[in-house]
Amino acid sequence: MWEKQVLLLPGPTPVPPRVLRAMGAPAINHRGPEFKELIAEITEGVKTIYRTASDVLVLTASGTGGMEAAVTNFLAPGDKALVVSIGAFGDRFKKICKTYGVEVEALDFPWGTAADPAAVAEKLKADTAGAIKAILVQHNETSTGVLNDIKAISEARGNHPALLIVDAISGLAAAELQTDEWNLDVVISGAQKAFMIPPGLAMISVNQRAWAVAEKVPNKRFYFDLLAAKESLASGQTPYTPAVSLMMGLREALRMMLAEGLPNITNRHYLYRDMVRAGVKALGLQFLADDSVASPAVTSVKTPGGYKPGDINKRMREKYNVVLAGGQGKLKDEIFRIGHLGFVQPVDLFAAFAALELVLRELELPVTPGAGVAALQRVLWERSGR
Amino acid sequence: MWEKQVLLLPGPTPVPPRVLRAMGAPAINHRGPEFKELIAEITEGVKTIYRTASDVLVLTASGTGGMEAAVTNFLAPGDKALVVSIGAFGDRFKKICKTYGVEVEALDFPWGTAADPAAVAEKLKADTAGAIKAILVQHNETSTGVLNDIKAISEARGNHPALLIVDAISGLAAAELQTDEWNLDVVISGAQKAFMIPPGLAMISVNQRAWAVAEKVPNKRFYFDLLAAKESLASGQTPYTPAVSLMMGLREALRMMLAEGLPNITNRHYLYRDMVRAGVKALGLQFLADDSVASPAVTSVKTPGGYKPGDINKRMREKYNVVLAGGQGKLKDEIFRIGHLGFVQPVDLFAAFAALELVLRELELPVTPGAGVAALQRVLWERSGR
Repeated sequence: MWEKQVLLLPGPTPVPPRVLRAMGAPAINHRGPEFKELIAEITEGVKTIYRTASDVLVLTASGTGGMEAAVTNFLAPGDKALVVSIGAFGDRFKKICKTYGVEVEALDFPWGTAADPAAVAEKLKADTAGAIKAILVQHNETSTGVLNDIKAISEARGNHPALLIVDAISGLAAAELQTDEWNLDVVISGAQKAFMIPPGLAMISVNQRAWAVAEKVPNKRFYFDLLAAKESLASGQTPYTPAVSLMMGLREALRMMLAEGLPNITNRHYLYRDMVRAGVKALGLQFLADDSVASPAVTSVKTPGGYKPGDINKRMREKYNVVLAGGQGKLKDEIFRIGHLGFVQPVDLFAAFAALELVLRELELPVTPGAGVAALQRVLWERSGR
Repeated sequence: MWEKQVLLLPGPTPVPPRVLRAMGAPAINHRGPEFKELIAEITEGVKTIYRTASDVLVLTASGTGGMEAAVTNFLAPGDKALVVSIGAFGDRFKKICKTYGVEVEALDFPWGTAADPAAVAEKLKADTAGAIKAILVQHNETSTGVLNDIKAISEARGNHPALLIVDAISGLAAAELQTDEWNLDVVISGAQKAFMIPPGLAMISVNQRAWAVAEKVPNKRFYFDLLAAKESLASGQTPYTPAVSLMMGLREALRMMLAEGLPNITNRHYLYRDMVRAGVKALGLQFLADDSVASPAVTSVKTPGGYKPGDINKRMREKYNVVLAGGQGKLKDEIFRIGHLGFVQPVDLFAAFAALELVLRELELPVTPGAGVAALQRVLWERSGR
């Protein structure tokens, strides 16, 4: 197979050539002055993308490690957490809580829908004893392609003292997220998403309210001890050896992101979402999620004609070198997912839809060649102001 | 500063150009067929280096994450562990145990010396109730440059049922280690050492005895759940997104290692150790560790003339672009360390000693220019059979 793939996953996302080159720099001492400069620049850049003045820590782990850090640093065994779940990653938060002895108050919504902020408000209102110590929720639910209204969920919290902990791993920079303005106490993100680097780093922001909690939670974490990470960062280091080459890649990616500008980045992702949805509609396929809650990072499409996701994705990959994602969890056999996250261009989407049309035809499903691509072109044409 | 440094650390170690190029390959789907091939090849390669037929798992974390996985998967809260410590990393094992509620029976030896297998035997003999569930010990103690006799420690265990858990992060492939032959239940290693890739991956082997224990330990781990990793590996995946680019680098590095051959790799490290020690002696400097226990990965040298390690290392770095390590823990101000691990060649050591002689001269310490280098040359000359 040719090296050049059209990789349309909700992560890992394609890595820009200049980021690949940056990661190819020679090794440096992670206890030396060059690393100190590296981590300082990264930390500032990530804060800009987070829109926060709070602390941001970079962990050597993939996103799930960041989720675990959020649970073990801010919730003690026996504490109660309100876990708002709209898909597989919401359920992952529940599993992590249970593993570490945190009691889960589940607030589940059907997969393919967003969380209702009013239902969150109700749960918190009912908690007159203040037993709920944290609200755990996804910004973008990768498994369904649904974006939660985090601003409204934060407002729904009212005066309840629970920390608001947001998994923004696949959503940050693709969809709007304002850490400080929206009063988000802890926000988790991951490298292999809109940050455009290979997997292996998780970022986590912690505000003063959250630090005050972490200081009182009995220390049941070591590798993911955020207080230790904060202390090391003050001297330009990490407690344990960090993934230096990935951090070099992150520095380069952040330079690209800051040059493009955060509003441009998010606008680009909303454009991709609208292009993809226009194409899916033109091909007569069905969405899992409504337009009103649709993710700018990934689009879930119901598999047509009784086929399994693999029937489409395997042909896309083997015949056309276009890589799409299948379903996750209980949607495993129901949907395929088109990622449009990170280092993706409109031409990648044109290519993917042209291939998708041919695959549908091969599966003897009704399709007008070019109809999907034309729909994408129209959206781009209209948005680019002619 | 020029990009090209002589990096002589006990990790991260220099990364070979072909490994850097391999890591620069485009992103792939970690749930796809290419990843399945990648993880299969890596797993087999790592097993060969470990000399084991047991399971080997690759974790997205640095070595400390592997150490934490060893504690949380094989020891339950309330269990007792015999922690054999000869330096900073032995002490790290104690901290991890305490964090996760494991009772520590400490067996400490002075920093700069090796563990006495007879003392291990005595501790185990005294444990007639079988309270000790695991022995935790370093293969190579990076902070002091001392190699433990793991084979003798394994033999000292006799019929005691405790698992033997070995941190071979900096020692594996530099010094001999035979996982199966020596009956080692769990062995941890790290990417940025003799495996020659950037930090961000930890490897861990688990034999049948250890799996039987893990199945009974209450599940107090999520990101580092080794049973979940084992289950995912059976279908060519990992439970959570892995550091794919580092794994591509590891594949390339393993190809280099298998081509060189394990005995040649370890012999090369013993040669470097002997060259470095000859040079240090010729310069009239003092070792922390005796020849009999000296590490083939890193050599600790007492800082001469009342200077601090930084006085030497800063000049080495700024004037000559040679990067050495300082001391760790209680040896912070006492020693500097010359790493000779991984992708290092004799010429790197010549260059470092020539620079070191000049730095000693600059510090007005007694030194005969060329004396250190000549000593290295003599060892190489004798070993290469003339």
